[in-house]
Amino acid sequence: MAKLGMTLRGVRELLGGGEIRGDEEFYCISVASLEKADPDCLSFVKNERNVEQARRSHAGALLTATPIEGFAGHQMIVEEPQEAFGRVLSQIAAGREAPSGVDPRAVIDPEAHVAAGAAIGPGAVLAKGASVGERVRIGANVYIGEGSSIGDDSVLYPNAVVLADVQVGKRVVIRSGSVIGADGYGYIQRDGRSVGVPQVGTVEISDDVEIGALTTIDRATVDATVIGARTKIGDMVHVGHNCQVGEDVLLLPTCLVSGSVKIGDKAILAGHAGTSDNLEIGAGAAIGGASVAFKDVAPGQTVWGVPAREKGLEMRIQAALKYLPEMLRDWRAAKSKG
Amino acid sequence: MAKLGMTLRGVRELLGGGEIRGDEEFYCISVASLEKADPDCLSFVKNERNVEQARRSHAGALLTATPIEGFAGHQMIVEEPQEAFGRVLSQIAAGREAPSGVDPRAVIDPEAHVAAGAAIGPGAVLAKGASVGERVRIGANVYIGEGSSIGDDSVLYPNAVVLADVQVGKRVVIRSGSVIGADGYGYIQRDGRSVGVPQVGTVEISDDVEIGALTTIDRATVDATVIGARTKIGDMVHVGHNCQVGEDVLLLPTCLVSGSVKIGDKAILAGHAGTSDNLEIGAGAAIGGASVAFKDVAPGQTVWGVPAREKGLEMRIQAALKYLPEMLRDWRAAKSKG
Amino acid sequence: MAKLGMTLRGVRELLGGGEIRGDEEFYCISVASLEKADPDCLSFVKNERNVEQARRSHAGALLTATPIEGFAGHQMIVEEPQEAFGRVLSQIAAGREAPSGVDPRAVIDPEAHVAAGAAIGPGAVLAKGASVGERVRIGANVYIGEGSSIGDDSVLYPNAVVLADVQVGKRVVIRSGSVIGADGYGYIQRDGRSVGVPQVGTVEISDDVEIGALTTIDRATVDATVIGARTKIGDMVHVGHNCQVGEDVLLLPTCLVSGSVKIGDKAILAGHAGTSDNLEIGAGAAIGGASVAFKDVAPGQTVWGVPAREKGLEMRIQAALKYLPEMLRDWRAAKSKG
Repeated sequence: MAKLGMTLRGVRELLGGGEIRGDEEFYCISVASLEKADPDCLSFVKNERNVEQARRSHAGALLTATPIEGFAGHQMIVEEPQEAFGRVLSQIAAGREAPSGVDPRAVIDPEAHVAAGAAIGPGAVLAKGASVGERVRIGANVYIGEGSSIGDDSVLYPNAVVLADVQVGKRVVIRSGSVIGADGYGYIQRDGRSVGVPQVGTVEISDDVEIGALTTIDRATVDATVIGARTKIGDMVHVGHNCQVGEDVLLLPTCLVSGSVKIGDKAILAGHAGTSDNLEIGAGAAIGGASVAFKDVAPGQTVWGVPAREKGLEMRIQAALKYLPEMLRDWRAAKSKG
Repeated sequence: MAKLGMTLRGVRELLGGGEIRGDEEFYCISVASLEKADPDCLSFVKNERNVEQARRSHAGALLTATPIEGFAGHQMIVEEPQEAFGRVLSQIAAGREAPSGVDPRAVIDPEAHVAAGAAIGPGAVLAKGASVGERVRIGANVYIGEGSSIGDDSVLYPNAVVLADVQVGKRVVIRSGSVIGADGYGYIQRDGRSVGVPQVGTVEISDDVEIGALTTIDRATVDATVIGARTKIGDMVHVGHNCQVGEDVLLLPTCLVSGSVKIGDKAILAGHAGTSDNLEIGAGAAIGGASVAFKDVAPGQTVWGVPAREKGLEMRIQAALKYLPEMLRDWRAAKSKG
Repeated sequence: MAKLGMTLRGVRELLGGGEIRGDEEFYCISVASLEKADPDCLSFVKNERNVEQARRSHAGALLTATPIEGFAGHQMIVEEPQEAFGRVLSQIAAGREAPSGVDPRAVIDPEAHVAAGAAIGPGAVLAKGASVGERVRIGANVYIGEGSSIGDDSVLYPNAVVLADVQVGKRVVIRSGSVIGADGYGYIQRDGRSVGVPQVGTVEISDDVEIGALTTIDRATVDATVIGARTKIGDMVHVGHNCQVGEDVLLLPTCLVSGSVKIGDKAILAGHAGTSDNLEIGAGAAIGGASVAFKDVAPGQTVWGVPAREKGLEMRIQAALKYLPEMLRDWRAAKSKG
């Protein structure tokens, strides 16, 4: 259970506001969901649908947008309870002990550069010419290839791999096991055999990007595969070579961006979604869950299905499909009648 | 080829029964499939469909439920040949040399705890407060984060990653490269930008769970992502944050369980299957191969398709679709006639 | 940007031919795409569709099949510009500094064998009886299990894992984080519980195979999972236990080959494609993007869709589906009339 250790008054100070109904000296030992909370926990009411659950919760205190009638514990009224609770969680996360200093069992090439305040875990390898910015945290057994640079305040979790010549911006997070800069799937056919096209480009990860665990982002054939600022990428996502992903894009876990795809700013690919290669997915476009685009998606358009179509049409098709067996029966009966 | 080194009589003793037709002193050097077996191999007949293949096999000896007419080698009649063969394989597997002791090149924090009989490979890292039970085997370059605990007799294969504060039960297997406890995909939108919600919960892996290679199980936002006892998870599966997976569940390779999904006991997700988030998949329910549930699945129900529907309906729809082009042509002809 | 450092004359010598229109002493500092090229870059014109883009490109020099009217820079006319450009890229790739020698922080069992000219990175682990051929390059933190062998001139990138008793051929590439030889998903049900079938077989990777990042190829139950010569496997592909994959097969990124599937020579699985288990995919067959085969695919056949059907039929069905909602409306109207 996540430790908090703060009075409700302290929480109000942290949030910069909020109306306490109950004892402002109530001490919240930890945080939990409505369902799991004990009487020493702070919890929160996400929205109207959770009111009944909140009433029955054993939480000692709640963050809520409207007072919960019949709830036995203390309450703090705030405008955006989910966001407020998130800020409380940030406080907890900030209190986690961060690694510090360079572990003597890290393997740092004499020609690598490690800035002041960076922390490097045991078994991490920085190859020749690799460069790590200020306050960067590199987990155990991470690999940073030749000539790659990691911007200030970035965090790489254990076993992440950044291959050669990759540029990673500031405040970037790369979670465990992800591989940035592998050679992409580039083969041409010659005399019935596949011949590899050398991939000599790179990957550029912009500032404030977050990348989940076990995700692959391949280097470009030439030029660079680019991930725009503030884009958030989930676990087990594949971004193929030469892709140009815009800013504030959301790539949810297990989605697939095939080679040479361009994705505009603020576009969304939901879980298990995908694209074929060489497409343009417009700014603000959305590809639904488990849906796969085989042609361009216009800016702002939402598509759904395999193959993906305009969402309204796909919904009507899916609704109609339930009647297809009956339609078939009637059609056959009419045919046989002549 | 997998070495056995046992007479048929020895195999009978191992199985606690079985009727030998042939020489009980026949010495089985190794095991193989019907197709690949040499005359010094033991093989088995899975079911009726393999009888013809068994007859032609070069195996020296067979485990079979019914005698195979015309097979030249020795036979042992057993009730469940596949299960019996599995027990022979267990014997082989048990004979594999297990690592022993703590490698001097493992990196073990002074405040980590390693129980008697545990084996830790080179390059493995146990952070502060990590705890490893009796007879646990930790492979090379594995990472165990701060405060995480691994129960007795568990096995972690090379390069697996268990991040901070994760509880792993007894007799659990985690295969190579899997990442347990990464922060999940939790963002809220504020002023058009994605703001990360800190993930301060944990993951609880119950006893006898097995987890394949390169699988991700994300930590809960608060509380715990839970995997119930004896659940078997394949390679490259993603289990999102806050999921509650029951006991004896089967999650086949490459399936996707999105965030906050509850899965009842003995449910099955086949290969490439998935769910959208916040669903309930009932006990004993099944989601077919490459099928994706977008709404709850009732206990015991089998669903199929993208989006997943009750299996019988989906089968009828798929069968009817083959006629749709012809139905369309007739519909158009009728329309144009007026 | 990828450094070249060669005059056009030098490029012509490298290619063994080509007609220079412009200054053969023009010095190409680097290479880039038409879109990104600066005046000191060499680029290429893939095909007719890129002619207009080529005309506007800032590239200093172009490889092209036909002269580009109105392009301001130098041109070299070659028959296959993409292939020629690939050879230039190979030249760049060959110039990258390769690691050499065995790093003192590699962990090599006294009973492992390392041939002359092999390079082993820091933190890499070679278990007892592991064997590495001539000029093999093993990246940092790679694991090679007991008794496994890696053929001459193969390359394993950082954090790749090859478990015990796996045979890897010559000139094989295994990219970062991939796991070869994990136990597959083999369970049988006994008294309502899943009992693991020990996986005592192996994996055989033939010569000239390439395997992308974070891919899993599981060992056979008995016998061997086989990947045929020259087959090219992308990132995040799963090949289940007991599969027999032929020669010159293409398995594109994120595709799934379920257990015990046989794939004939030169077959293709496109991105996100999959199969259910125990199928035969014939030689030269193709499974389209995001398409999943639930039954055998005949040699040379192309299938598409979920479930996959003969491509022509699936295309007609998908085209017809757009009219289904309207057909349903008419069908209902006709029913209600009488």
